[in-house]
This record gives sequence, C-alpha cells and structure tokens, in this order.
Amino acid sequence: MRHQAPFTNLAEFAALLAGFGGIDEAAVKAASARNNELTKPPGALGRLEEIAIWYAGWRKDAAPQIMQPEVIIFAGNHGVAAQGVSAFPAEVTEQMVLNFQAGGAAINQLSACFGAKLSVKALDLDAPTEDFTKAPAMSEAEVVLALAVGWNAVNTASDLLVVGEMGIGNTTSAAAIVNALYGGDTADWVGRGTGIDDAGLQNKLRVVREGLALHADILDDPLQVLTCLGGREIAAMAGAIARARAENIPVILDGFICCAAAAVLAKSTDGALDHCVAGHVSAEAAHAKVLENMDKKPLLSLGLRLGEGSGAALAIGVVKGALACHSGMSTFAEAGVSDG
Amino acid sequence: MRHQAPFTNLAEFAALLAGFGGIDEAAVKAASARNNELTKPPGALGRLEEIAIWYAGWRKDAAPQIMQPEVIIFAGNHGVAAQGVSAFPAEVTEQMVLNFQAGGAAINQLSACFGAKLSVKALDLDAPTEDFTKAPAMSEAEVVLALAVGWNAVNTASDLLVVGEMGIGNTTSAAAIVNALYGGDTADWVGRGTGIDDAGLQNKLRVVREGLALHADILDDPLQVLTCLGGREIAAMAGAIARARAENIPVILDGFICCAAAAVLAKSTDGALDHCVAGHVSAEAAHAKVLENMDKKPLLSLGLRLGEGSGAALAIGVVKGALACHSGMSTFAEAGVSDG
Repeated sequence: MRHQAPFTNLAEFAALLAGFGGIDEAAVKAASARNNELTKPPGALGRLEEIAIWYAGWRKDAAPQIMQPEVIIFAGNHGVAAQGVSAFPAEVTEQMVLNFQAGGAAINQLSACFGAKLSVKALDLDAPTEDFTKAPAMSEAEVVLALAVGWNAVNTASDLLVVGEMGIGNTTSAAAIVNALYGGDTADWVGRGTGIDDAGLQNKLRVVREGLALHADILDDPLQVLTCLGGREIAAMAGAIARARAENIPVILDGFICCAAAAVLAKSTDGALDHCVAGHVSAEAAHAKVLENMDKKPLLSLGLRLGEGSGAALAIGVVKGALACHSGMSTFAEAGVSDG
Repeated sequence: MRHQAPFTNLAEFAALLAGFGGIDEAAVKAASARNNELTKPPGALGRLEEIAIWYAGWRKDAAPQIMQPEVIIFAGNHGVAAQGVSAFPAEVTEQMVLNFQAGGAAINQLSACFGAKLSVKALDLDAPTEDFTKAPAMSEAEVVLALAVGWNAVNTASDLLVVGEMGIGNTTSAAAIVNALYGGDTADWVGRGTGIDDAGLQNKLRVVREGLALHADILDDPLQVLTCLGGREIAAMAGAIARARAENIPVILDGFICCAAAAVLAKSTDGALDHCVAGHVSAEAAHAKVLENMDKKPLLSLGLRLGEGSGAALAIGVVKGALACHSGMSTFAEAGVSDG
C-alpha cells in the first residue's frame, strides 16, 4: 500500500531533503573488514570493492545480496517541444510508453536481462508543461504533484533503484536546468539529444538561453529551477531518488536527464546523492560535465545516449557482480588459501 | 564427447590458425539492417549496437540470443616462481583451484551472476614449467599438449566464451611474452601483479630481461615465444581461444595474462582475434598497452587486476545486454512508433 507523500509544497520537500541521514558507518566498517578477508589480493577487484562497501553501508548489512532491483520509467510531455527542439515529434512520448508497456523497448530487454522489475508512470501526457521560454514550465502544485508521483512510485521492498525517462524535448529542459544550476556557457550544456542537425542545435541553444533569461530571478533556487525549466518526468525522477534515500535503497543514476533531476537534489542539499552511483557516462557531451560537477565517476562508458534508464540498467550488472563477489566469496581462512 | 585436437605439433597449430575463416558478412548485413529498424534513435545504444552486430556476424544469425556462456579457468605452475616474482607462494595456485572447485572465488560468483557455466582445468600443477631464465619453459610436446587441453576444454555448444587463469608467477611469464612479441622497454611491460613491492618489481624486471636474453634467438616466432617464456595455463588459453574461432563462438578477453595468450595468436596470424572483444582493461598497467597493440577497446575499465577471468565475466553482462536489446526490441513498424 502506498503512503501519501510527506510533503505538500516545495518548502516541505526541501526540508525533507535536508533532514535525511547518511550512510551506516558501522556497516561500512564491517563490510570493509570482510572485503579484506576475501580470497583475492588486496584491491584486486578494483571499483567492485568500493561499490560493494558503499552498497553495504546504505543497506546497513555487511554482506547484502541484491534480490529486487527496480527500474521505473517516468514519461512527460514538454511545451518547449513545440519550438522544434527534437528530431522526433511529441507524439513519440506516448508511442514509446505503449512500447514500454508492450515490452518492445531497450529498457524492457535490459531490465529482464538483469532481473529488474520494470514499471512505467506516464504523467499527464495530454497536458504538456508550459513552454519555458514563455512561462514557468509548471506551477508549484504541478511540480509537487510530479515529485509525489515519483516518491510514491518506489517499491519500498526494492534493494536497488534505476529511474529512467521518456519525454520528447527533455534534453532541452535538462540542459536549461543544469545550465541554471552550474552556470557557465549555455553552449557547453546543449547537445544533439536524439540527433538534431546543426540548425536544430542553434535553435535549441536559443530556446535554452531564452528560458534562462525569462526566469533569471529564480536561478539560485534549485527547486524553482526544476519548477520553471523542468518537466513532470524530471520532477518525478527527483522525487523517486529522494524516496530511495528515505528507504535506504541505493540508486544507479542514468544519463543526462536523470542527472539533471539528481542535480536539483544535490544543489538543494549537500550529500543528497550520497546513496547514488553514476551508472554510465552518456554520449550527450554535457553529461560528463554534470557528473564532474556532482563528483561522480561513471561505472560504464559505452557511448549510450538513449535515456529510458538504459545505461543505468546495464550497470545493474556491475553492481550485482560487485555484491555477488563481496557477499558470496570465501575468506582466506574459510578456503584454506595462504594470504601472501 | 571430445574430439582429439587437430594438431600434433606447433607447425600444424600455426597452419590451423592461418586457415580460419572470417565473420559471416551476410549475417553482419542482416543484423545491421535490423539494428536500423529498432525503436531508438540511430546509434543511441552506442557500443552495444556494434557488439550486437559483431556477435551476430560470428554466430551467423541476424538476431541471436546468448543462452550458454561458458567460463573456463586454466591453472598452471611456473618454474620462474622460484625466483620470488610473486607476492604469494606457489602453493596458492593449487589452493585457489580447490577454492574454484568449492565455489568460493570471485569467478564463481560472477559466473553464477551472469548465467555462465564454469569449469576448471588444472594442468600438471605438480610439475611446474622450467624457470625460463635457465631453459625453455616447455618442450614442444608440453606446449602442444597444453594447447590441446585448451582446445578440448571448450564446449562446442557454448555461445560465448571467457577464459581465465590461475598461476602464481604468471604475470612474469605474460610480461616476458608480450615484451618478446611487441618489443620496447621491458620496464613498460612489467607490473606489480598481485602486489609486489619496489624491490620485487626490480627482481621481476631482472627475471624478464634474463629470460629474453636467454631466448633471444626465437623471439620472432610467436609460438616459440609461448613455448620458451609461457606457461601451461597460458598455452591452454590460446588453444581455447583458437577452438572458439573454429566453432564460431565469440570470446571475451580478460586481463593481462589472457591477452598475452591471445597476443601469441594475433602475432601468428593477422585477424586471429577478430572473434574476440576486450572485456576490460586491468589495473596492471601493461594490459592497456597490449590492448592498444591488438587494436581492442575494452568494454569495462573498473580497476580489476584479479585474473581468473573475472573482468571478462563481468563483461558478459554487457554483451548479454547488447544482444538482449538487439534481438528482443521491437522495430518502429512493429511498435507503431514514428521514426523521426
């Protein structure tokens, strides 16, 4: 049974973020001690060791298993899509939701491949957000509702979470968000998304610049940035990542749009993404820049730029592998192996 | 039932390598056409698309599934271990074989995690190779037998192969092999293996240099390099990789030692590793240099340096994910999605 989200406005959501606890240091210590006893040279599993200890700390268990990974895709439509910022028409958002429901998309295959339960939440697809070059994308009531959809979508029995998205136009929204949060030249944050041409890229740059100019007064408030420049699916991802923190569920971050949602949380509260690992670095060039700003090193770098949670879902394999080793291997003493 | 290996000496093995066929171009073409129709922007799955088409080409099937991945660990003991080149005593080779058999090692967990069948072949552990600073490591009869053990170990019903190894002292043997094959400064090929200190590193350098000096006359013959500087488990890995080629089984290469074995094949015959992808790049620094020389770009870079096939086993997840997408996704026409 789902609970009502424990916030009814942005101030309450911000207070919730600020009040979250950190990793369980006792579990980190116990997991580190176990790691040192396993039948391998010290450090020989590289980042798998670090990931296993991090995961153990958040799960408050020195030797946890990953039994119930979950992937949730949020879909939303963007008023800004009317400005011609995408290579695909806006109706593709809904068509792809149907494709997710029918099992035909990349994320369906990857979720099945790594044993993750997949669900899809479409947020008011028939009511796109406002075009952010003309008005705030959402009202406070709308963004709070979208955050709550994300918050409520997380299965509290999950032990690993991936959030993905579908929303024609949403790399434009994500570029505007991260440009607002991290500053710098707009051209460094705007990329080709699903594959626009040079003229499309110039148009997308113009749109982001106009959006930032129109909303110049609120750019120092991360949750207002989300409200004015974001989208429902982006807010929902932020809500789900926050819920995962409340439930001690580690999160694998996906690509550029997921990380724009996550960046809103990180800019709101220091350490808000300590329960998150970066699943991959996308071919959308600004994603690497977002990860640097978050101080997150990606697990994979395979040139994906699909969204849907696909890169993070692929990284479920790495995290599962790390925990399988950590929690399943014998110690030197158990195996009767000389430890050097 | 196993067949006798189709070679009885190194000349026959070399001739076999030289006679292998290439990828099935018709399957590559069909798989590429399918890839272009899948419900995603062109290229949005990055290297997963390239891997899927490569795999399809070797399997002669436009939309194959990966149903039976196989991991084989070969273990051997090295005479050169008596020179103190490892942080671990030589008896650890056999202790770890027992650990593999008992299910307690990293490779057991990773194989299970990615649905791969694991087997272990210990090659005459009670008869280490000769110390290559004093004599050829193996006779021709010994190296041919080890190649045949590898050749025969491959299950011809497998559809993806990882070969791993265990052998105290074998990074020294691998460094000598790749230094012989690729030339250059010995210091660039010798690393810390399982974790030797600075004095150990200097000793290992001396040992490799002495080996290359003693066998200077045969360094232009890759199979003689394997014979004089290699080990039984390294030869067996080469034999298994060759068998996979004969059976159209794609291979994921593991780290430094696996790639030293593979390099022997590549230097023997151009294109001998076309059916292989590099699973990861190891923290053993010379591994990256070997991959560059082979023109192989690793799928993963997570700082592993364990051997056992562990990095390649982790990459099974990536290759499975690639094929799950390629063969499981709907096309634009099937899903009724507008293709831009």
